[in-house]
Amino acid sequence: MGIDTHQEPLVYMREDSHVCRAEGFNASSRVQLKVNGKQLVATLNIVDNATLPSDHVGLSRIGIKRLEVADGDRVFVNHAPVVVSFSAVRKKVYGHTLSDSEIQSIITDISEHRYSDVEIGSFLSVCAGRRLGLDEIIGLTQAMVAAGKRLSWANSDRVFDKHCIGGLPGNRTTPLVVAIVSAAGLIIPKTSSRAITSPAGTADTMETLTEVNLPVKDIQRVVSETGACLAWGGAVNLSPADDLLIRIERALNLDGEGQLIASVLSKKIAAGSTHVIVDIPVGPTAKVRSKADAEYLAGLFVQVGKACGIQVRCIITDGSCPIGAGIGPVEEARDILAVLRQEPGAPQDLRRRALMLSAHLFDFAQGGGLDKATDKARGILESGAAWQQFERLLQAQGGMKTLPQARYHKTQTSDRKGIIASIDNRKLARLAKLAGAPSDPAAGLRLHVNVGSHLVTGDEVFTLYTESIGEQDYALNYYRDNPDIFVTGEDG
Amino acid sequence: MGIDTHQEPLVYMREDSHVCRAEGFNASSRVQLKVNGKQLVATLNIVDNATLPSDHVGLSRIGIKRLEVADGDRVFVNHAPVVVSFSAVRKKVYGHTLSDSEIQSIITDISEHRYSDVEIGSFLSVCAGRRLGLDEIIGLTQAMVAAGKRLSWANSDRVFDKHCIGGLPGNRTTPLVVAIVSAAGLIIPKTSSRAITSPAGTADTMETLTEVNLPVKDIQRVVSETGACLAWGGAVNLSPADDLLIRIERALNLDGEGQLIASVLSKKIAAGSTHVIVDIPVGPTAKVRSKADAEYLAGLFVQVGKACGIQVRCIITDGSCPIGAGIGPVEEARDILAVLRQEPGAPQDLRRRALMLSAHLFDFAQGGGLDKATDKARGILESGAAWQQFERLLQAQGGMKTLPQARYHKTQTSDRKGIIASIDNRKLARLAKLAGAPSDPAAGLRLHVNVGSHLVTGDEVFTLYTESIGEQDYALNYYRDNPDIFVTGEDG
Repeated sequence: MGIDTHQEPLVYMREDSHVCRAEGFNASSRVQLKVNGKQLVATLNIVDNATLPSDHVGLSRIGIKRLEVADGDRVFVNHAPVVVSFSAVRKKVYGHTLSDSEIQSIITDISEHRYSDVEIGSFLSVCAGRRLGLDEIIGLTQAMVAAGKRLSWANSDRVFDKHCIGGLPGNRTTPLVVAIVSAAGLIIPKTSSRAITSPAGTADTMETLTEVNLPVKDIQRVVSETGACLAWGGAVNLSPADDLLIRIERALNLDGEGQLIASVLSKKIAAGSTHVIVDIPVGPTAKVRSKADAEYLAGLFVQVGKACGIQVRCIITDGSCPIGAGIGPVEEARDILAVLRQEPGAPQDLRRRALMLSAHLFDFAQGGGLDKATDKARGILESGAAWQQFERLLQAQGGMKTLPQARYHKTQTSDRKGIIASIDNRKLARLAKLAGAPSDPAAGLRLHVNVGSHLVTGDEVFTLYTESIGEQDYALNYYRDNPDIFVTGEDG
Repeated sequence: MGIDTHQEPLVYMREDSHVCRAEGFNASSRVQLKVNGKQLVATLNIVDNATLPSDHVGLSRIGIKRLEVADGDRVFVNHAPVVVSFSAVRKKVYGHTLSDSEIQSIITDISEHRYSDVEIGSFLSVCAGRRLGLDEIIGLTQAMVAAGKRLSWANSDRVFDKHCIGGLPGNRTTPLVVAIVSAAGLIIPKTSSRAITSPAGTADTMETLTEVNLPVKDIQRVVSETGACLAWGGAVNLSPADDLLIRIERALNLDGEGQLIASVLSKKIAAGSTHVIVDIPVGPTAKVRSKADAEYLAGLFVQVGKACGIQVRCIITDGSCPIGAGIGPVEEARDILAVLRQEPGAPQDLRRRALMLSAHLFDFAQGGGLDKATDKARGILESGAAWQQFERLLQAQGGMKTLPQARYHKTQTSDRKGIIASIDNRKLARLAKLAGAPSDPAAGLRLHVNVGSHLVTGDEVFTLYTESIGEQDYALNYYRDNPDIFVTGEDG
């Protein structure tokens, strides 16, 4: 049909077609299609005009791709089988605890595309908000591992990883930490996801610098050459269910903690990691808002990790303000290059945080305390060894790309004098998303101030980057409607 | 575009169109359309072929209907405004209590079609399972009343209504109760909904007998002529939000209790009722499974009613087995006619239950105890007064229709000897739905047995009615896969 419906497949048939009448289909029916041994469940849209002959079936792009079907193929259409596992979702709606096998059946059905978007959204909504118990999170993690591929690393009994649960715009420490610790010989094959609710994920940022869409054999080669990689996890199908879940989480701007832990740890386990550091930033407008919430989450991470046979160490960090100056894939990549190359304007907050996390990994690996480990990390960055290692990594992944420039940019200046008392991370992230990040990689913004900056009227606050004037207008309208993004206090 | 997408509007544009490029739209973007002073939020599907000129916008049927747009009209397309109220849904996901104004804003946005299906599904899922507190249910009820029309009844200071929360296949007492009590002079302007998760709602059943799609002025006329009506509530727009919510509840087969109370009472309040009886059947496979759950629900119904200024009386009834023999709109209508006409084969369980509920309404109205009230109800039925009143009602609503016959029927017989120990109401309802009920009104089934029936091999168990062979096969496969629908014990 030449229609792009994103990831939910739609099928088009005429109301007067034989199969619609015989099977009693109507608009929104869930139907099963079978072609050449492949099958697919799709939602039916009824077509009533001459677009389609009565004995033909139309498909949206994703449907054609999944069925690998061509014009003229013979398609068998049936009622979609009853999705038995959805009764387990309903059980969860009513507050009951799910067994491992119930969770397994839900994840299997989602991985095999048997759930509609509305059903996936329902599952995610009722699992968010502390509604998954420890055993359910362990079951979910193991089900998500079981549904995908699993990597293993010959000759490496200890495989490291780090993860930040996000919520701080610009906080792109992962590429820096990977460069620093792998320069010292730790094995850290990092597979990252794309943004869920933020303006950029590590995979989005790395994709502006090099190829991240690496098949497993390329990842194995890159890791054997460099001890590390910075690839997109989705390309290796480590957790196919998670990719489907993330798409709906993004639409709902929802990120439940049980789902979060299962999503993070299932990918670490599938990637063959044995030692994982999880960075949990805490702040009034970060993803985690209180120390108590962070400790609750940290406890779950450690317990779920242990139950699944890996060691997890959580680090609760300051999440009160953005880290780095760039927000959005390309702008964050600029910050990473600036820190690694030790450029004068490089954001020091991002550098400090990357050194701290690298130090935790060194301490996790070798002990000896954080002070000594921090000195080691700083030495690797300052000697240029981290930058050389990063270049080796980019080369191994397919070479370094030139960062694109957004078509439009506009700098906002301050209309008052004062000191910046706070920045709303959530609204700042939304501003960057409205500008087009992460789907337009060069879209986003660059902060010229941070919490504590002294301003006079006319000082630059931030520059907005967009690929269209429509998005620029839309983002700046949001900025004007939300004066609390930057709260200015009196300059004492 | 000639595409029927049910209630969720879709818009089609070419990727290379000026507006997609300028605004940065892609597949699944939520966009706002403005034409001739009307506006609509729709989900974008990208079209890449020659179906559409690059400067044209295509719409699915529901989109064309809502915008009242014609070929050649000039359409303005923008990013959909941020749906601010969804942050309240997210708040609920995380277990926080919603304020009246937050609930009001959610219901307003849903009524005005600003939520996607996935967002509505998320809202419903997190409100189900006892997650709405008393104040939230009151707020939701009032918000749903405020979003729609409100009826009033001149010269009637007491307006009655009854509602069964469902879960028992075939339990179609409402038309019987309305006929009996209005024959005695009670004012009972009954507006019913269509099925949510069941094979038929009262509106679906009544529609097979007469016109139920009545505008307000017709309802007022019918009530002034007869003291009653049996109309579809959706046609009078008493609760536009509820109709949108019910559509997704149906897709998710979900019916949360806070949502249930708000849905029921908002329509009663909007319909101008002052005295409402709620029938709550309890049984292991009914909608409410335990006496404790029923009492919890009854308590909420009474309290929410009181807070909203109406009197509610709840009756907890036996929900252990189906009531009546027909399941599905037409088959249930046959049972109603048989009871009113006092035909010899009329289902006695349905008759008894209708008399009991009528007695409760008489006692609610005049006091004097249930025994006296039951005698009164029985007298009205046996004298033929109820049937005459029902005929008057059908005449006033537009005349009596001839019940249609399903195209296919198939009778299942017993393959064993024994006594029926239990029937699974949920699975029986599903069987009737798989046969095509309620969207095919004549589809469904007729029970030839009930709990306690003695069977020998070859006895008829039920007859299945369908409009297509596909649905017959599908339903009978489900029957064969679920031998526990009818559980047979040893005949002692």
